[in-house]
Amino acid sequence: MRDAFHDELDSIGQTLIDMGHLVGTAVQLATTALLTADLKIAEQVISEDIKIDNMQHELDAKTLNILVREQPVAGDLRTLISSLRMSADLERMGDLAHHIAKVARMRFPSTAVPPELVLTIQEMGDVLSRIITKTTGVLRTHDLESAIQLEKDDDEMDKLHRKLFLILLDDAWPHGIETAIDMTLLGRYYERCADHAVSVCRRVYFLVTGEYASEQA
Amino acid sequence: MRDAFHDELDSIGQTLIDMGHLVGTAVQLATTALLTADLKIAEQVISEDIKIDNMQHELDAKTLNILVREQPVAGDLRTLISSLRMSADLERMGDLAHHIAKVARMRFPSTAVPPELVLTIQEMGDVLSRIITKTTGVLRTHDLESAIQLEKDDDEMDKLHRKLFLILLDDAWPHGIETAIDMTLLGRYYERCADHAVSVCRRVYFLVTGEYASEQA
Repeated sequence: MRDAFHDELDSIGQTLIDMGHLVGTAVQLATTALLTADLKIAEQVISEDIKIDNMQHELDAKTLNILVREQPVAGDLRTLISSLRMSADLERMGDLAHHIAKVARMRFPSTAVPPELVLTIQEMGDVLSRIITKTTGVLRTHDLESAIQLEKDDDEMDKLHRKLFLILLDDAWPHGIETAIDMTLLGRYYERCADHAVSVCRRVYFLVTGEYASEQA
Repeated sequence: MRDAFHDELDSIGQTLIDMGHLVGTAVQLATTALLTADLKIAEQVISEDIKIDNMQHELDAKTLNILVREQPVAGDLRTLISSLRMSADLERMGDLAHHIAKVARMRFPSTAVPPELVLTIQEMGDVLSRIITKTTGVLRTHDLESAIQLEKDDDEMDKLHRKLFLILLDDAWPHGIETAIDMTLLGRYYERCADHAVSVCRRVYFLVTGEYASEQA
């Protein structure tokens, strides 16, 4: 039978999964707002980021409270410390979705993304959504195979990121500096968000095996 | 008299200070490499980042080991958890210095920064070095007044970041897209590095008072 303490640990794990779902939705909506110049959706992502921030604060307070009260050993301690780190990654991913939405809002009623880059940004959004869905799955199942595979999706993100720069640097690039700045920042937001997802999966790997998956950051 | 456990806590505190010094040096050298197109210095920053990474790994392993072995209570527990978080911030600051140095290396033998932006980047570098020196001081003294004042230095960094964009967006900007991309990324590296320093100071504030300084991230 489970005791109250392990119910609390389960509830912390569930909150991380819930944060993953919220971050996934935020990224998807931010990409839609960006590509369709939808101010309402952009505003929604911007205003709802506070939910993810609050979840992190509450989760961390709860985790610290358990650490102080229960003085857990070995495995449980590792679970709690990992939770603190994963919640920080997930919170930061929410911030990056918020940054993407702010670019959409700043350029409204124009579309921030010029036609030459719509496909690349769409692909970056798709890859990132896939990465976050898998990450949330890894948080739920602790499946190590998926955790490792995520590195491949992240390679795809890096490829798209390089492609974005190649398009920007093409001599035929007809847009100005402002658009180049927007696209440079957007590229970085998508790429960093994927990096944090990889970091979450590496932490799950460490949690399960006690070893680092590869070049753990 | 101090016991062995508290000597260990002191040594963790000292390692954070040492990391702060290394990060400060890395940022200063990276800015020099960037503004003087000095390949040797850029390579030095790039290759030495592993030192900061290793310090974080060792510090975290040691901290986790103490947590498992000693099951510390209240204040000591808070110190150890905060150390894990601050070491992550410091490690990331090292990464950002490494990113700055990589821009210098990529554009060598040219200078990455065009004449119009030399002064702004120099100022960003100076403000960031000042911020890191103060942060290292806060880690050593736990002085709350300095921890709070750091937010003002960070405001200065944000102002310089906005100034950089204004210069890039001036109609008279004579450089191409590539330089604009470099400058956009550099601006972000300096600004993010300062944000992480602010985060370290906020964690010291929390550690000492048990309360958040302001809108704690």
